[in-house]
Amino acid sequence: MTAVIPMVKMRRATDRPGVAEFVSRCNAFVDEVLLPLERTFLQGSFRAMKPDLDRARRESRARGLWAPWVPAEHGGLGLTLPEYALVSAALGRSPLGHYACNCQAPDVGNMELLMSHGTDDQRARWLAPLVSGAIRSGFSMTEPEFAGSNPVHMETSAVRKGDQYVINGHKWFTSSADGAAFLIVMAVTNPDAKPHQRASQIIVPSDTPGVTRVRNVKTMGEAGDDWASHAEMRYENVSVPIANRIGDEGAGFALAQERLGPGRIHHCMRWIGICERAIELMLRHASRRLLSPGHPLGEKQVVQHWLAECKAEVEAARLLVLHCAQQIHDHGAKEARMHVSLIKFHTAGVLQRVLDKAIQVHGGLGITDDTPLAYWFRHERAARIYDGPDEVHKGQVARAMLKPYGIKAE
Amino acid sequence: MTAVIPMVKMRRATDRPGVAEFVSRCNAFVDEVLLPLERTFLQGSFRAMKPDLDRARRESRARGLWAPWVPAEHGGLGLTLPEYALVSAALGRSPLGHYACNCQAPDVGNMELLMSHGTDDQRARWLAPLVSGAIRSGFSMTEPEFAGSNPVHMETSAVRKGDQYVINGHKWFTSSADGAAFLIVMAVTNPDAKPHQRASQIIVPSDTPGVTRVRNVKTMGEAGDDWASHAEMRYENVSVPIANRIGDEGAGFALAQERLGPGRIHHCMRWIGICERAIELMLRHASRRLLSPGHPLGEKQVVQHWLAECKAEVEAARLLVLHCAQQIHDHGAKEARMHVSLIKFHTAGVLQRVLDKAIQVHGGLGITDDTPLAYWFRHERAARIYDGPDEVHKGQVARAMLKPYGIKAE
Amino acid sequence: MTAVIPMVKMRRATDRPGVAEFVSRCNAFVDEVLLPLERTFLQGSFRAMKPDLDRARRESRARGLWAPWVPAEHGGLGLTLPEYALVSAALGRSPLGHYACNCQAPDVGNMELLMSHGTDDQRARWLAPLVSGAIRSGFSMTEPEFAGSNPVHMETSAVRKGDQYVINGHKWFTSSADGAAFLIVMAVTNPDAKPHQRASQIIVPSDTPGVTRVRNVKTMGEAGDDWASHAEMRYENVSVPIANRIGDEGAGFALAQERLGPGRIHHCMRWIGICERAIELMLRHASRRLLSPGHPLGEKQVVQHWLAECKAEVEAARLLVLHCAQQIHDHGAKEARMHVSLIKFHTAGVLQRVLDKAIQVHGGLGITDDTPLAYWFRHERAARIYDGPDEVHKGQVARAMLKPYGIKAE
Amino acid sequence: MTAVIPMVKMRRATDRPGVAEFVSRCNAFVDEVLLPLERTFLQGSFRAMKPDLDRARRESRARGLWAPWVPAEHGGLGLTLPEYALVSAALGRSPLGHYACNCQAPDVGNMELLMSHGTDDQRARWLAPLVSGAIRSGFSMTEPEFAGSNPVHMETSAVRKGDQYVINGHKWFTSSADGAAFLIVMAVTNPDAKPHQRASQIIVPSDTPGVTRVRNVKTMGEAGDDWASHAEMRYENVSVPIANRIGDEGAGFALAQERLGPGRIHHCMRWIGICERAIELMLRHASRRLLSPGHPLGEKQVVQHWLAECKAEVEAARLLVLHCAQQIHDHGAKEARMHVSLIKFHTAGVLQRVLDKAIQVHGGLGITDDTPLAYWFRHERAARIYDGPDEVHKGQVARAMLKPYGIKAE
Repeated sequence: MTAVIPMVKMRRATDRPGVAEFVSRCNAFVDEVLLPLERTFLQGSFRAMKPDLDRARRESRARGLWAPWVPAEHGGLGLTLPEYALVSAALGRSPLGHYACNCQAPDVGNMELLMSHGTDDQRARWLAPLVSGAIRSGFSMTEPEFAGSNPVHMETSAVRKGDQYVINGHKWFTSSADGAAFLIVMAVTNPDAKPHQRASQIIVPSDTPGVTRVRNVKTMGEAGDDWASHAEMRYENVSVPIANRIGDEGAGFALAQERLGPGRIHHCMRWIGICERAIELMLRHASRRLLSPGHPLGEKQVVQHWLAECKAEVEAARLLVLHCAQQIHDHGAKEARMHVSLIKFHTAGVLQRVLDKAIQVHGGLGITDDTPLAYWFRHERAARIYDGPDEVHKGQVARAMLKPYGIKAE
Repeated sequence: MTAVIPMVKMRRATDRPGVAEFVSRCNAFVDEVLLPLERTFLQGSFRAMKPDLDRARRESRARGLWAPWVPAEHGGLGLTLPEYALVSAALGRSPLGHYACNCQAPDVGNMELLMSHGTDDQRARWLAPLVSGAIRSGFSMTEPEFAGSNPVHMETSAVRKGDQYVINGHKWFTSSADGAAFLIVMAVTNPDAKPHQRASQIIVPSDTPGVTRVRNVKTMGEAGDDWASHAEMRYENVSVPIANRIGDEGAGFALAQERLGPGRIHHCMRWIGICERAIELMLRHASRRLLSPGHPLGEKQVVQHWLAECKAEVEAARLLVLHCAQQIHDHGAKEARMHVSLIKFHTAGVLQRVLDKAIQVHGGLGITDDTPLAYWFRHERAARIYDGPDEVHKGQVARAMLKPYGIKAE
Repeated sequence: MTAVIPMVKMRRATDRPGVAEFVSRCNAFVDEVLLPLERTFLQGSFRAMKPDLDRARRESRARGLWAPWVPAEHGGLGLTLPEYALVSAALGRSPLGHYACNCQAPDVGNMELLMSHGTDDQRARWLAPLVSGAIRSGFSMTEPEFAGSNPVHMETSAVRKGDQYVINGHKWFTSSADGAAFLIVMAVTNPDAKPHQRASQIIVPSDTPGVTRVRNVKTMGEAGDDWASHAEMRYENVSVPIANRIGDEGAGFALAQERLGPGRIHHCMRWIGICERAIELMLRHASRRLLSPGHPLGEKQVVQHWLAECKAEVEAARLLVLHCAQQIHDHGAKEARMHVSLIKFHTAGVLQRVLDKAIQVHGGLGITDDTPLAYWFRHERAARIYDGPDEVHKGQVARAMLKPYGIKAE
Repeated sequence: MTAVIPMVKMRRATDRPGVAEFVSRCNAFVDEVLLPLERTFLQGSFRAMKPDLDRARRESRARGLWAPWVPAEHGGLGLTLPEYALVSAALGRSPLGHYACNCQAPDVGNMELLMSHGTDDQRARWLAPLVSGAIRSGFSMTEPEFAGSNPVHMETSAVRKGDQYVINGHKWFTSSADGAAFLIVMAVTNPDAKPHQRASQIIVPSDTPGVTRVRNVKTMGEAGDDWASHAEMRYENVSVPIANRIGDEGAGFALAQERLGPGRIHHCMRWIGICERAIELMLRHASRRLLSPGHPLGEKQVVQHWLAECKAEVEAARLLVLHCAQQIHDHGAKEARMHVSLIKFHTAGVLQRVLDKAIQVHGGLGITDDTPLAYWFRHERAARIYDGPDEVHKGQVARAMLKPYGIKAE
């Protein structure tokens, strides 16, 4: 038997030469450059702090951290998905981490889409400046009148007229539309096709006549601005060249699905990063806040148990996400679909529980915007909703589990 | 046996003549007058909507709903605590309910204090205009440098100098200080006394020299303004007459404790009202939002189970709070102390779980400020912290339970 | 206003003359007579301890506690439902409480059925000896091949042949069949009627030819015996007079529903009694078990918080059940149907959480049968399943909630 | 960058040649040989089925699965800890798996102890027949009068008298003492030493005069017998040679700690195996049980969500345990101590939640002993207690987390 099973050490991603060191540099960048900007970010407007952020972006470039997820041929660092996963956790420790390294949503997803399915012209015009950080973009899919959990249920239409699409529709949660150079709009191009083959993704420059940003939707207390906002949009007889369509006509959903696999790794590892930061903040506060002279909060058994419970949940979730990243890397996002759904709802739940405990440990301070905890508590409540609510993902997992037993879930 | 136990119907508070009808009128007031103001409130500044709110206050007065908790002799409606509890739930269905009927915190607590312990002069000068709604007030106790869970740990001092107190200190979470005519400030007057006998409560007019409102503390995304804010305050050599002290010197904590009994009934029933509204919103959304044509969200088993779970938790919590209100009414807040702690942490937990589910049912809409759910989700996270964090109340309950067994908890 | 709402004290059931004293006597009976029998019960066979139990039954009679829920005209004490609810909690503190006072399931339900729908002959022959304790009975409804959550799904048939029903079928969870003088068997008499009108309830003496008790089903580690058992039964060409049918032909489900309203109050309050005992045991163990010399377990913050959490849940659940008992008393079980479902799943959940914590507090001792905690942990896991699983009751509640909004749940 | 970080695939233990295949063979052994024995095991006595089990043990030997965790030099298969972890999960799918392959507790721990610290004589006399399966052993540490969570709190003493130890004491939870050839007894040999250096581990042949097995303690409804039992023991003037001591005098706790690292991997992976089996049973029942004709239980959204939630928790926990096994393998149990505590409480919690849901899916069937679910629900409630209760492990984790911040937890 011992001959049959040689002792081979289980390798983990961080064992590889270079990766651990790169992740350390990301952590150092966050600590040295971004944490000092956090207070300003939490108290004010994103647009007002653009000069600070531009400086941070120059610094990330100087430190060799720019566009880590973009392949080298397109101007990035070309990390693999499991590698980038570790980076995303490191950057996630600050709300500004991904932006500072130009791997923030929705731009990172839009870049992926253009890299995989864009024409040369589209890449030259839209991808290159995205990668360089010269412009930003938005993604315009969800409609207020329809349940986001059923994305084929959509009213925005793009009707061919000569070599143009004429787009009409009403969208919201168009992330980062405020200040974006262009939007990728999901619109029905083939109303008579099967539900999943009706829509296409079309590039719409923001300054096209008929494009109206109605408002930045106030969510959880803040309308936000610039990148840090979600817009309600109206498209009224918006005319763009058919050449602005990405991929085949009717391929909109297929492309949307495709982007979600890696995209969910990015999010989940970002949430792991948030959890780690929350634990750091808990530990620091528990050791500094005195309940009475000489008696720090961290002596309390209940606080200790919360720390241990958070640690267990976060470590287990991290491994689950990394395992999924490896599955996608090895077998593709389609094969790993059940794992992707698994991590999406599971990690979002862990995140919410960790933040809740971190706030309770901080007491009154926890509900102020003097730490990033309240920001995350508010903003990441959406983690259980965006990119598919928990309920949709649980249904997906169950479907895959029950299939061999002859049951069709949902 | 049947002779021994005559069939007597268990009476509940709402069986009494007049109460049920009064509560109905409160609900109607909320539905007709306040819900239409909600959107403005959720999107903008409190101060900007003061004209609207003044109109609502006039209407509440006209409908005979003004100051329900204040005894008739001081100009209110004189409801008992169990009666007012039902009213607080009805008004709690809107974030503006208590303000519109002049029973909002912290004013209602300050009124109670002045009614119970104020001198005739203090009542004439401060209580009367509070009851009439001519002025507002603040309550200034918590200090950023000390754990709120141990209120005897405090640095603000009030030193006698002739017939004046000279106050120096640093406070935060001074609720509604922005625009308040006066603040009740907790300060150490007897530094050498036993911990619970060191501090006094002192009336400080807001325009006294040395009183600085440093900022409205941004909490959960909003600094807020006017009544809807929590200020950081500095008191630097603030001089006020000794006659501004409420009650005995050193009685500050005793008075603070006293206010918390009924105050927690007010809060808990307000939370019950929020839960009821959240359930209403869930039911409405679940019946209107279509997942596909003809198939409303409410058909989903998981949504149905959430509704049932919320219902059970809210109904049970309501009865627990009403039972506690009756205990206080019958035996006094001191006797009912364990019950008060019980409802404080239990109801706050129910509230958080109900709001969380209500948001999940609403999907993307739930995280916008287009419904009050996100507002409550953010603001009422503090319910598990203010007026004593969960952990303090659980400790109190355990202490009372273990006492007969000879154990001193904590 | 004060004129409109006179101060009327909220009355509770225990305020009534006689009830509180009667409940005290029940508690004393449990403490003095039953707790000393517990160890024998937990370690051995029910049948072997029958002499002890007969003595306990004589004592309960002597103390005037016999058959509290049976109307005086049928030989009981005639408590109302809210009154009996309090008694059920007191007796529930011991696993032997209800048996000792002859109000144990399934006999108490069978008595109710015979009182409400039995003929004079049926009452003379079966009800009288049940009330006197001379015989026991079983209830035979659930079938192993069908989901208990859908009771109209059933295969046992009763075919008329002259003045006889010939019954064939396979049942399990026929509670207390071992030693029962008769069984009430649910069987399809009208296969062509609407689903809910197909079955009838028929009295089958246990010694009728063709009745086979296949086994006492081993559940959670114990097959049990006598009253403390659940049998698998076969009915093969079992012939009984048509006069043995209770109520109308086809009324089986309607009668089954009817019995469940009060029956669930009995169960829920019994569970509340179990919870109270579990809390007593926790308090005692936490005060006696030393972690190190001079340091009892009860000093641990986590144990304290569990105690407080249990207390809050149990107190709130008790009020919810009592409120439901009052609703049934005032308006009938049908009107109170949603409340009945609410308490069924909610109280069962509270029970499970309390027992789990009580066991954890007891450590190794908690998993032994040296306390009743492990017995309840095992046996009452079924509380979330019998008399309708949680899921069915949640669906019922949701259906009632959604109905005014035009949605049909499930 | 791409040069710096070459794409190296993250390896997992199951990628190695031979391991995956070996684990498959374990699974096949369980399916083919052990599952058919399960019903007998669940319904009756362990001793009565010994012939069946002996056959199963011969089969496991024949299939090359015997003693997988024992090094080749001592007659086993010599798997590494990460490798054995996978095997433990496979065998854990049946309650008989570990016994059938001779890697059951407490023997496996006793073997480890003798391998690491036994003298040649001890190994010849006790280890060899344990490995061959000729005898069984017990482990006697916990005392009923003291809290298991504080193991230095102990009264059993071993006093030197010539070349003998004379042992007196009272123990319980002496696992598998019924039928064991010898017991390893923890007793105080150095009462005046520091608390952790007072006790020694001593081999006591079961037939030594003065050794009394008082009873097999009835736990969760079953006293059990033979291997499947936990005894209460009395040691009265039990005299054994000093040469029976394992390791140094006073090293008892150090050795006990040592055994717990790998021992907890064994348990945790066994629990993962139980979870997998529970999920298999859920899937099978959900697909076969019809709620109405044509509508299997698995169509219910709530059942689907439970499946997904279980899957996520189990997959994440499995990775956490495997990661910990690797840590122990790479750095030793001492270095991995925090990870060991993390998996102990976390996996035990996952296990309990999964079993609870599996039972609920099975309804009435779930509480019978017709499936192994009820057995595990009962027996593995102890998982949160034995080998250190949750609370002790959470405290350990917190201590490690807080240490760098200067706080001493607990």
